[in-house]
Amino acid sequence: MVVTIIGLGLIGGSLAKDLKSNGFATSLLGVEKSDSHAQEALDLGLVGEIVDMRDGCRMADVVVLATPVNALGKLFPMVLDYLRPGGVAIDMGSTKSEISQIIHDHPNRRRAVLAHPMAGTEFSGPSAAINNLFQHKAAIICDREDSDADAFLLAERLFKSLFMRVTYMDSRAHDVHAAYVSHVSHISSFVLALTVLEKEQSEANIFDLASGGFASTVRLAKSSPRMWADIYQQNAHNLIDVLDEYLSKMQQFRDLIQASDYDQVYQLMEEANKIKKILK
Amino acid sequence: MVVTIIGLGLIGGSLAKDLKSNGFATSLLGVEKSDSHAQEALDLGLVGEIVDMRDGCRMADVVVLATPVNALGKLFPMVLDYLRPGGVAIDMGSTKSEISQIIHDHPNRRRAVLAHPMAGTEFSGPSAAINNLFQHKAAIICDREDSDADAFLLAERLFKSLFMRVTYMDSRAHDVHAAYVSHVSHISSFVLALTVLEKEQSEANIFDLASGGFASTVRLAKSSPRMWADIYQQNAHNLIDVLDEYLSKMQQFRDLIQASDYDQVYQLMEEANKIKKILK
Repeated sequence: MVVTIIGLGLIGGSLAKDLKSNGFATSLLGVEKSDSHAQEALDLGLVGEIVDMRDGCRMADVVVLATPVNALGKLFPMVLDYLRPGGVAIDMGSTKSEISQIIHDHPNRRRAVLAHPMAGTEFSGPSAAINNLFQHKAAIICDREDSDADAFLLAERLFKSLFMRVTYMDSRAHDVHAAYVSHVSHISSFVLALTVLEKEQSEANIFDLASGGFASTVRLAKSSPRMWADIYQQNAHNLIDVLDEYLSKMQQFRDLIQASDYDQVYQLMEEANKIKKILK
Repeated sequence: MVVTIIGLGLIGGSLAKDLKSNGFATSLLGVEKSDSHAQEALDLGLVGEIVDMRDGCRMADVVVLATPVNALGKLFPMVLDYLRPGGVAIDMGSTKSEISQIIHDHPNRRRAVLAHPMAGTEFSGPSAAINNLFQHKAAIICDREDSDADAFLLAERLFKSLFMRVTYMDSRAHDVHAAYVSHVSHISSFVLALTVLEKEQSEANIFDLASGGFASTVRLAKSSPRMWADIYQQNAHNLIDVLDEYLSKMQQFRDLIQASDYDQVYQLMEEANKIKKILK
């Protein structure tokens, strides 16, 4: 199967590695706006050839859009314009409601599949691409009823070839859930880093004390500001709701400590411990 | 060297494992309030014998206090009462200012060393004890000038036998720094878990989407409520300052998203990225 990947960063590049090694793609084409990333992707052997977008769409059985989410509004309709008959286009964006609306009335909408593989690291660019990034993670396919059956089944096959669990969901529900389990994790990590970095300017050796707990909580603060600013913009409405809940719980924690009510503090933490049952 | 460890949980138990295997301790005695933990520690072979506190102090060259911090106020003076001439007592508590004041005027103060090995996991109890927990982590020794030189040098040797980096610090500075790099990480993780768990009651499959980023940010929310309630209580004053800064930065983030000011959001995240230079 000929696969064209648009955007050869962490997600697109890692996808290229796995789809080649597992045989899903017999031929891999890349479309990449940045010349330096294009060269890097060729040097790393992520794709066999860099092509322009029109050729990439016309030559492919499957086109994967793996660009930052704010680029999708322009790119996805173009890809659907260029797609060859029977071709399928799948996006990998972290937010889904806005792109769902943008392509909703496109004549080729039924050849499009909206997807979100829930995988990543704090690194970005072609050199961040790694094998098995997607293994045992969840892939969400949104608004399945708007795609042809052969199209979403092809997407499902692609994700299963990466050993992912495939879940179907409405695009609006997806964005609410993603705000909870992904977007706010990133913001809390960025905020923690900011708080500590500011203190560090006045105190020399604060990081001598940084332990494994701090490192894991702050890891996501190394993530790409460009990518995350775009995601927040796309999901602002849900995100503000979740941030308000987060802020109110954090304020409650703070006020209970201020009031020396450690029984309540204990109970809040015992409640939070229930996360053990859900995440191993 | 005969080492007595008071409190055979994650820290005391892991210490026992390493001090035995590296030869620092020729004989290991345990003091443990909980009968079931005492039995578990014997079954796991963490210590050779369980003794009462008085015997444990009298028989030992080094007594290590590895209990929850709120127990130290009562235990540390007793240990200093019982200590044999030339003996050394070292505590492992996560907060230092209060215990520093409590033992300040004890006649045996100079045989005491206040320490904090910056290591741990989200698990607790004797069965959580693991080898190499302390390796390559920081050990802080506080208020060195209040200890005899041979006492703090023995503590330094003990930590170095575990391959720890030893840092010296004033106990008040320690508590400020620990609030930043350890205590607030835990609170932000507990709050994230609470926020998501509450949502989960009304939405069935929210955890289908949980990715590695969420898991690492929320890991600390599995920690022991008893241990952390004690630590917050001991360090409430510093903690409230840091939480107020954290809350104000989180509010700023939220308000910038609300105002669609993504340039500023971008800049905050780019600032937070500086954490890369500090934590590899």
